[in-house]
Amino acid sequence: MSGSIFGKQFTISTWGESHGKALGVVIDGCPSGISLCEADIQKELDKRKPGSNPYGTKRKESDEVHILSGVFEGKTTGTPISMIVYNQDHHSADYSEIASYYRPGHADYTFDKKYGLHDYRGGGRSSGRETLCRVAAGAVAKKILSALQIDLFAYTKSIGDITVQEFCREEISQNKLFMPDKQAAALAETYLQQCIKEEDSAGGIIECVVSHLPIGIGEPVFDKLQAVLGQALFSIGAVKGLEFGDGFSVSQVKGSQNNDAFFAENGVIQKKTNHSGGILGGMSDGSPLVFRLAFKPTPSIYKTQQTVTKNGENISINIKGRHDPIIVPRAVVVVEAMTAIALVDLLFQNMVSNIHSIINFYQS
Amino acid sequence: MSGSIFGKQFTISTWGESHGKALGVVIDGCPSGISLCEADIQKELDKRKPGSNPYGTKRKESDEVHILSGVFEGKTTGTPISMIVYNQDHHSADYSEIASYYRPGHADYTFDKKYGLHDYRGGGRSSGRETLCRVAAGAVAKKILSALQIDLFAYTKSIGDITVQEFCREEISQNKLFMPDKQAAALAETYLQQCIKEEDSAGGIIECVVSHLPIGIGEPVFDKLQAVLGQALFSIGAVKGLEFGDGFSVSQVKGSQNNDAFFAENGVIQKKTNHSGGILGGMSDGSPLVFRLAFKPTPSIYKTQQTVTKNGENISINIKGRHDPIIVPRAVVVVEAMTAIALVDLLFQNMVSNIHSIINFYQS
Amino acid sequence: MSGSIFGKQFTISTWGESHGKALGVVIDGCPSGISLCEADIQKELDKRKPGSNPYGTKRKESDEVHILSGVFEGKTTGTPISMIVYNQDHHSADYSEIASYYRPGHADYTFDKKYGLHDYRGGGRSSGRETLCRVAAGAVAKKILSALQIDLFAYTKSIGDITVQEFCREEISQNKLFMPDKQAAALAETYLQQCIKEEDSAGGIIECVVSHLPIGIGEPVFDKLQAVLGQALFSIGAVKGLEFGDGFSVSQVKGSQNNDAFFAENGVIQKKTNHSGGILGGMSDGSPLVFRLAFKPTPSIYKTQQTVTKNGENISINIKGRHDPIIVPRAVVVVEAMTAIALVDLLFQNMVSNIHSIINFYQS
Amino acid sequence: MSGSIFGKQFTISTWGESHGKALGVVIDGCPSGISLCEADIQKELDKRKPGSNPYGTKRKESDEVHILSGVFEGKTTGTPISMIVYNQDHHSADYSEIASYYRPGHADYTFDKKYGLHDYRGGGRSSGRETLCRVAAGAVAKKILSALQIDLFAYTKSIGDITVQEFCREEISQNKLFMPDKQAAALAETYLQQCIKEEDSAGGIIECVVSHLPIGIGEPVFDKLQAVLGQALFSIGAVKGLEFGDGFSVSQVKGSQNNDAFFAENGVIQKKTNHSGGILGGMSDGSPLVFRLAFKPTPSIYKTQQTVTKNGENISINIKGRHDPIIVPRAVVVVEAMTAIALVDLLFQNMVSNIHSIINFYQS
Repeated sequence: MSGSIFGKQFTISTWGESHGKALGVVIDGCPSGISLCEADIQKELDKRKPGSNPYGTKRKESDEVHILSGVFEGKTTGTPISMIVYNQDHHSADYSEIASYYRPGHADYTFDKKYGLHDYRGGGRSSGRETLCRVAAGAVAKKILSALQIDLFAYTKSIGDITVQEFCREEISQNKLFMPDKQAAALAETYLQQCIKEEDSAGGIIECVVSHLPIGIGEPVFDKLQAVLGQALFSIGAVKGLEFGDGFSVSQVKGSQNNDAFFAENGVIQKKTNHSGGILGGMSDGSPLVFRLAFKPTPSIYKTQQTVTKNGENISINIKGRHDPIIVPRAVVVVEAMTAIALVDLLFQNMVSNIHSIINFYQS
Repeated sequence: MSGSIFGKQFTISTWGESHGKALGVVIDGCPSGISLCEADIQKELDKRKPGSNPYGTKRKESDEVHILSGVFEGKTTGTPISMIVYNQDHHSADYSEIASYYRPGHADYTFDKKYGLHDYRGGGRSSGRETLCRVAAGAVAKKILSALQIDLFAYTKSIGDITVQEFCREEISQNKLFMPDKQAAALAETYLQQCIKEEDSAGGIIECVVSHLPIGIGEPVFDKLQAVLGQALFSIGAVKGLEFGDGFSVSQVKGSQNNDAFFAENGVIQKKTNHSGGILGGMSDGSPLVFRLAFKPTPSIYKTQQTVTKNGENISINIKGRHDPIIVPRAVVVVEAMTAIALVDLLFQNMVSNIHSIINFYQS
Repeated sequence: MSGSIFGKQFTISTWGESHGKALGVVIDGCPSGISLCEADIQKELDKRKPGSNPYGTKRKESDEVHILSGVFEGKTTGTPISMIVYNQDHHSADYSEIASYYRPGHADYTFDKKYGLHDYRGGGRSSGRETLCRVAAGAVAKKILSALQIDLFAYTKSIGDITVQEFCREEISQNKLFMPDKQAAALAETYLQQCIKEEDSAGGIIECVVSHLPIGIGEPVFDKLQAVLGQALFSIGAVKGLEFGDGFSVSQVKGSQNNDAFFAENGVIQKKTNHSGGILGGMSDGSPLVFRLAFKPTPSIYKTQQTVTKNGENISINIKGRHDPIIVPRAVVVVEAMTAIALVDLLFQNMVSNIHSIINFYQS
Repeated sequence: MSGSIFGKQFTISTWGESHGKALGVVIDGCPSGISLCEADIQKELDKRKPGSNPYGTKRKESDEVHILSGVFEGKTTGTPISMIVYNQDHHSADYSEIASYYRPGHADYTFDKKYGLHDYRGGGRSSGRETLCRVAAGAVAKKILSALQIDLFAYTKSIGDITVQEFCREEISQNKLFMPDKQAAALAETYLQQCIKEEDSAGGIIECVVSHLPIGIGEPVFDKLQAVLGQALFSIGAVKGLEFGDGFSVSQVKGSQNNDAFFAENGVIQKKTNHSGGILGGMSDGSPLVFRLAFKPTPSIYKTQQTVTKNGENISINIKGRHDPIIVPRAVVVVEAMTAIALVDLLFQNMVSNIHSIINFYQS
């Protein structure tokens, strides 16, 4: 148990159920002296807000965040930052039926087996709404990365079998699917319309890129950069795959093709290529950190499905309610958030790697 | 720092460099009462032993393990189990040259930047030899899984672009590549011979399957089954990708294709398919846990490569020494070990999920 | 940093400042199936409620707790339990003066040096109000102890130099000082009246007794029962000393006087005496767990004191506001809370000590 | 379980039994760049070496330490430091009898109840020999404190009812009892001779003083300086009490007597007194950190004692073997070690308290 806490030095603790009174997060270990206000958080939350996107759920939730502690006169104080979002749009009636059966692709069955009971309303603890706590904490982590001049962004790389062909960073925020390629976005919209018509749902791939990360971030053995990100990113509900740099394709090439040669120019050491995705030996290597995540299609579909009741009776069901035909666009900011949180934690841990910097810290 | 410790309740702490005096592991949190002797550990270590395999390095290392604590009269006592393997086959001379430059695809550069110095002999701490500590601890974890009647195995699924077509479990231990398909193994051998002739190296894919895992293992939020395995598996040096169940391909299918329908037969609830790879909501769902890992080609190749010296001079190098043309077959047992360790930790954490089982424990 | 989280398996994360919007706690790792409602928590909070006690501060705070998550249909669900108490009785004006200087005996100076800034209103994060989060979490821990039939209570053993002479458990809740001796309580009241008249404050000693703890709780080396309690109890602000069993007096006796002889009666092994305070080798030994804590006098006194301003000017001050002339009676429930939290964590960790109980758990 | 690991950023993992093959410790999180050799460790180990002291056990153990990893060319590399001491002086025969009964004041009974079996030879895991692992790790922690110009020392303050009257720091290492008062040491020797004659044992008090600790070390809530030290110090086997600054006596004084007034001289803020023992609000306050520990008399005495066999039979026993008539002098270096380890961990955690120092670190 106690699996709702993440991080060692920059620690987040999330809580809350989809249809409970509220959801929230406590950040413990945020340094003092950072300018922080609710608008900093709200801006990020609004990116995953349901209702703003035709391909997201039609629920209307204001998802308004309140900072309850850890900020004084506009600055973080170094004490825990508690943030809360009250739930407003309850229609518990919508969910009364699902109390009786196990939805395919959902956590109903495993929750019930593990705990003997669960809050079945709207997915309860395993609802996608839990991710707004991550986004709120991620907004703080992003401010820290930003103060360190580290650039981080994610985008939708593919939806179904439509993959981005061109990359224009400005375009990402211009379309509702967060794709950096206008034409691909148009094709993907058509595909999603088709999914909606079929009462079905779609999956996709998100890519994340982090530039200007200092060299040496990540710890050499179990807390490798990719390992800590591995936990952070696979903790996002619908993720079924994760690959760094050239990823799965490295299994088919030879060492001479996959190794990134080093070279020096004006005394600066760089890599000619970045097959490694910015990681060597579990530590950031100075090239951009690059990784991709595969998201499964939303499991809640309107189409008739086969399942069982809690009493073990075989039945056909038609899930009602308001569900996203695709999770991917709303998950982009969640991927950014979890990445930022994991990186801040590793950046903090890295500060005690060398005795000379510790002596400098205490003697200056 | 402190990134050489893994696990919360079943904790392993590894130490040692490739060419130091020894390598070892301390397990803290192993229950008392398990029969354990050195042969139990040695059996597993021998699976990754170099020299026994024509496609592994030709170094001869006995890799003989000694249990130094935590076992009394043939049983574990519940106190820390310390295991050690002394290094014997030092040829530090082989490595003197590499002290001066950064090998492509290796951790030399990042270690140097992070710590200001590093033990460059044979890869030092980032050597593949570190994995023998994981295998030793994994041998203990496997005994625990076995006592709980949980079945775990991994195998080579592909090497280069040769993929297993048939599956015969008995065949896995019959060929040197740990492939469950005799013919694929023969083709892969030919491919590896070609790589050796070209002074190059190959990558591949390992699949792991765990059956009879109790339902509900894994914690719902950050310590999801796939997230804890995500950290455990991405902490293995050469892993560049990881996917569960249908993995990356889920991004291209629809919800109706990806959802696993539930059904009941004689009162037993099961899933008709296993696209999920045995995980729902971050917890084991009763179907086999299935995942695949992509391994990059060995970065140490004999072919000429471009790189820089520590002083920033551009040079050509030819790496000498004895290196594996492929890591994959020797990594099979490492994948099993890390999986077993992570699962034991989650099995232990799961025991306090429900007050009724806690009351039973203390009142019986 | 990240020092606002306590526990490994039963984990509490507290947040909030004295004069911020609210204070709260998140419990991660509470098992499912426990009956829990706000009244269970409120009952405990009311024991430390200011205003109800002539020797506590005269502030009126309702300290009404709200459970925001983790409970469904009256039972815990196994997911994080978030509890909140909104702050109501703000008089920030009272505290504007103290922004300029460092109060003796308080954390103003060290906070300022560590963080560069701090919320100075009412002590901010280091206010005694933080303990209500511990009491709320402790109420849940107590329910778990109670389900395991473990009995825990604390009481005021001395105030100033007035020490309890008789012990009547029922009396503890009958007087406002939580003393088990009516006469001692009367003397202590006189002493406190004198302190108030002198614009001064008093300290005291709290004793805690836990009976029917299973044998073997606590881990043999760093997580000894007394060591985990050591952290838990010294984390309560005003505690300056802690002793178990015969405590400091053991330094003056001989081994033959201090050893507790074992004996068996009707097959049950017991100790003839309990000098050890219920702990042997860092584990509970079957006798009652007994320990005492020394609390310093409240540092906020009305008497004139010498101190410095933030600019390093020497000044005389007279602290205003409403302050407890003694912390001890209100701290009794805090001691119980921290003890209960630490014990639940150790009870949970103990469940994986022996492979046979793990096999029983998974195979029954 | 997993209670043999201590620390968050500077982490030690100890292992080994009194009569097993060896004992050892792994430090994870030691920064790179520290000069370290075996003599640095041996020097500390020799302070607790049995046989060198007439009031310590007469066992002859060379306790020779070997560094197995984490040091390269005389410097720490930032990777785990593994240290080992092989056991040599086994007389397992001496201990065969104690397998059958529970020694009063020892961990035999609780180990047996918790684990179902235990290594009973020489106390097994709960032997005082375990502390040599702490001393070895402490030697490394002391080097770090020394590099930060922090001064730490402990000494015997009392033995039985003989208490130090004068303080001469140089004297501490001049007598075998580590007392800073020659006359008190002479009286204490007489008392110990008497104890030996009576086949009995003695207890005592150790005081520890740390000067030049930076201000602000310790985290405000659960990881207060005194709380982290509370766990570290109560994890030393025979400790029954711990008090900081004026300790237990604060319960009897008034606030006006206990508060330490601040004053400024030449712009430097100081405290007029140090009743607080160098801690305010859980953080170091610039004055020396001062605390005292009460140690119980050695439980192994030659005098006849009453106890029970494992079968519940009441018997009289006479413990044989070689046992210390007092633990205190040999524990002085153990107290220093645990203090140093805890302080290093908190010094490291403190480095991420303020965003400005983090920006400085990464941008210089």
